[in-house]
Amino acid sequence: MTLAPSVSYSITVRLELPAAGGAVSRLTTAVEEAGGVVSALDVTASGPKVVRIDVTMAARSSDHAGELVAALRRLEGVTIGKVSDRTFLLHLGGKIEVTSKVPIRNRDDLSMVYTPGVARVCLAIAENPEDARRLTIKRNTVAVVTDGSAVLGLGNLGPKPALPVMEGKAALFKRFAGIDAFPICLDTQDVDEIVQTVQRIAPVFAGINLEDISAPRCFEVESRLRELLDIPVFHDDQHGTAIVVLAALTNALKVVDKALPDVRIVMAGAGAAGTAILDLLLAAGARDVVVCDEHGALHPDRPATDERLCAIARRTNPRGYQGSLKGALAGADVFVGVSAPGILTGDDIATMAPRAVVFALANPDPEVDPVDAAEHAEVVATGRSDAPNQINNVLAFPGVFRGLLDAQSRGVTTGLLLAAARALAAVVADEELNAAYIVPSVFHPGVADTVAAAVRDAALRGAPAPEPMEELPGARDQQPGLGAGHDEEGPA
Amino acid sequence: MTLAPSVSYSITVRLELPAAGGAVSRLTTAVEEAGGVVSALDVTASGPKVVRIDVTMAARSSDHAGELVAALRRLEGVTIGKVSDRTFLLHLGGKIEVTSKVPIRNRDDLSMVYTPGVARVCLAIAENPEDARRLTIKRNTVAVVTDGSAVLGLGNLGPKPALPVMEGKAALFKRFAGIDAFPICLDTQDVDEIVQTVQRIAPVFAGINLEDISAPRCFEVESRLRELLDIPVFHDDQHGTAIVVLAALTNALKVVDKALPDVRIVMAGAGAAGTAILDLLLAAGARDVVVCDEHGALHPDRPATDERLCAIARRTNPRGYQGSLKGALAGADVFVGVSAPGILTGDDIATMAPRAVVFALANPDPEVDPVDAAEHAEVVATGRSDAPNQINNVLAFPGVFRGLLDAQSRGVTTGLLLAAARALAAVVADEELNAAYIVPSVFHPGVADTVAAAVRDAALRGAPAPEPMEELPGARDQQPGLGAGHDEEGPA
Repeated sequence: MTLAPSVSYSITVRLELPAAGGAVSRLTTAVEEAGGVVSALDVTASGPKVVRIDVTMAARSSDHAGELVAALRRLEGVTIGKVSDRTFLLHLGGKIEVTSKVPIRNRDDLSMVYTPGVARVCLAIAENPEDARRLTIKRNTVAVVTDGSAVLGLGNLGPKPALPVMEGKAALFKRFAGIDAFPICLDTQDVDEIVQTVQRIAPVFAGINLEDISAPRCFEVESRLRELLDIPVFHDDQHGTAIVVLAALTNALKVVDKALPDVRIVMAGAGAAGTAILDLLLAAGARDVVVCDEHGALHPDRPATDERLCAIARRTNPRGYQGSLKGALAGADVFVGVSAPGILTGDDIATMAPRAVVFALANPDPEVDPVDAAEHAEVVATGRSDAPNQINNVLAFPGVFRGLLDAQSRGVTTGLLLAAARALAAVVADEELNAAYIVPSVFHPGVADTVAAAVRDAALRGAPAPEPMEELPGARDQQPGLGAGHDEEGPA
Repeated sequence: MTLAPSVSYSITVRLELPAAGGAVSRLTTAVEEAGGVVSALDVTASGPKVVRIDVTMAARSSDHAGELVAALRRLEGVTIGKVSDRTFLLHLGGKIEVTSKVPIRNRDDLSMVYTPGVARVCLAIAENPEDARRLTIKRNTVAVVTDGSAVLGLGNLGPKPALPVMEGKAALFKRFAGIDAFPICLDTQDVDEIVQTVQRIAPVFAGINLEDISAPRCFEVESRLRELLDIPVFHDDQHGTAIVVLAALTNALKVVDKALPDVRIVMAGAGAAGTAILDLLLAAGARDVVVCDEHGALHPDRPATDERLCAIARRTNPRGYQGSLKGALAGADVFVGVSAPGILTGDDIATMAPRAVVFALANPDPEVDPVDAAEHAEVVATGRSDAPNQINNVLAFPGVFRGLLDAQSRGVTTGLLLAAARALAAVVADEELNAAYIVPSVFHPGVADTVAAAVRDAALRGAPAPEPMEELPGARDQQPGLGAGHDEEGPA
């Protein structure tokens, strides 16, 4: 597919050039002829002979950014200075910070925030550990935990290179759901050690968001932590993706006027995301799903298949299809790819049933060029922000955790994931729904609130009501700090 | 000692009383006669017969707060409503938050903060792990780690009750040194597990502040982490206290015109703080120190003494004193207590040498009433905020870590601690110095900066210069993201 220049490959070049007429237009023409898009231009110094200019431009890739600089350098009389990368500049010093919510202006403040006043708060929590949810950050705090083994689509980079992703995630948690999230990048990729470490740091947190942990280790890490901890554990690469896929598919099937129990679904990819998507589709009522990996369709008779894939085979492929992904697509209503770039062509999509739905979600490059796919499928979605119908986890995880935290939930169930998907799908009103708009934008107001409310309600159904946290001042008797004897009635 | 009412035991009582003349003064008189101090009084509703008032008052203790409420209840016609504790109200929801430093307003922002733009930053760090100090929060981020085994003076409360202290510490790190600190409260008190866990979460942090871990486990945790990690590890209860004690003693000895190598020092307490204070005093030149625990003076012939105490005995007590703490005090120039409340009287202090210095640092109640001590000693310091010369760790740890982080230090040495103590002592100018002012207030401007500069300079002496982190825009070529070929010269 042809990429458009993107702000994520945006550079600023400081240069000097002779102060002749037409100097600036020579510059911008050079950028545009080389395929770049000028987004800002500042003359930072101007003299009788020379002007100094900072020019910011979007490129298609790192290599393309290099080509843009080369094109500028070829201009007569130009001296190239610093070349800055906007994305790198934004990352200098990191993207999040830890700030105090309380003023510390004087000795009185200090004596309440820290010693001696804080001692009574500690004692209150020692007496009633559940008070940690009222009197500390625990109630609103999530750990974003990775071992760096599957960083984005980049592979096993390790903990430090994963940190920018985890910081970004924390920033998104705050931006979209008001949640305080902190990155935990583990210097181990051993399942036992990951589980132990998360268990040991859990007291501070009300939820664990696992991130970028490779399959199949992520399955065991998640299931063991769910056993061990009394707070929800959610692997976003699995369940966040699954929620958004189910929501998007719900709406896509409305567009093509088909029903989930009736459609033939072909999936490519049986890793973390694929497994979770499959689970949620089946829970939502899908009945005919064929899952393919790089060796073709999973079926119970396939030799040398590991236990996990066998389990998938037993729950899927009701027609017993044996063969390639491409063969499976023939006559299928829905394709969901979470696998590898460019494994399908428009011709493959052409073999699908009429009014086909194609979710080609491999990142950054999808399984099939979405432009080619759209020639044969009625609804096409990708993970990309530069095409319609972006399947983006940011649509799910902030609201999901907001709901879990508000309910003081101790776990995550499939019912909660289904509730989240249904709520997300419903954000797109029937009159807005069309083939190019099956999911809202991540900036659509109310997405997180809607998902949060659905998750909170589902979590609270049948569960005890969460402890209320009252507001200032004097709304609730702060019993623990005062010992017995102060349980007064309100004024008559 | 007689305690004054303190804001850290401050309550707000909502009450109703008959709208008669003199109603308010009846209230305030009742509070004052019961020993409370009214700090605010708001009439929140006023009718022809009844007024509703919120009255805020400082008490001496939790019990005393209860007595104040009882005194109000005895007033004729008064109905007591909610009783709120200001310290608890301040803690509702916790004291710190995690915020985004970068705007996320639209798709362009999102594509730089998160995918796809962040991928290039990850790859750059994978290529050069040291770039994590430029492109992530690592450079400015400290873990505040506890196992909850020695929370303030309260004992082994466990991880959740320790969280308010760790949050407070994080708030102080930000307030006094601009450092992003995050609380890690461990659900284990096993030394091996503590060490393993901190090692595994270390990639995100540029420093580890150990806190409220009981002796002797804290010694092994610290020394093993210092071996394992390439970032500084600092147990504040030990070294923070030691720095402030040495600074205060330096100034106190100036006041009484004595020299550290010549004075006889008696210490009470051989736990975490005592051991670290001893180490630093000896490193600074002290020669005659007798350390006492609850069994009396440590000396090599004492039976059944553990190896750690034997090691202390071998390095101290040059005159071979055997006997009680009280006996050791006779003729001593300096007493430093980090032990237990009320173990000495004014009469004991009277046996010390002329112009004695007494640091009675047990918290919250000192080894000797400072008022009694001051009758016989020339300089008296405590850990309390309601007496002169408060020995407060907040004077040290923010500046120490600021200096360590700015130097990108990989460890902590005794030389750094001495430099911090010298710098802190020097904040009090000779013309300001007197027996009631041997350390600055924690709100004295420039304390952290001064300590930080001294630590940074000491850390950099002989070490390689830290990687510079330039400011926006375009100050430094962001090479890693652009591949080869962009290493341009600046304009001539």
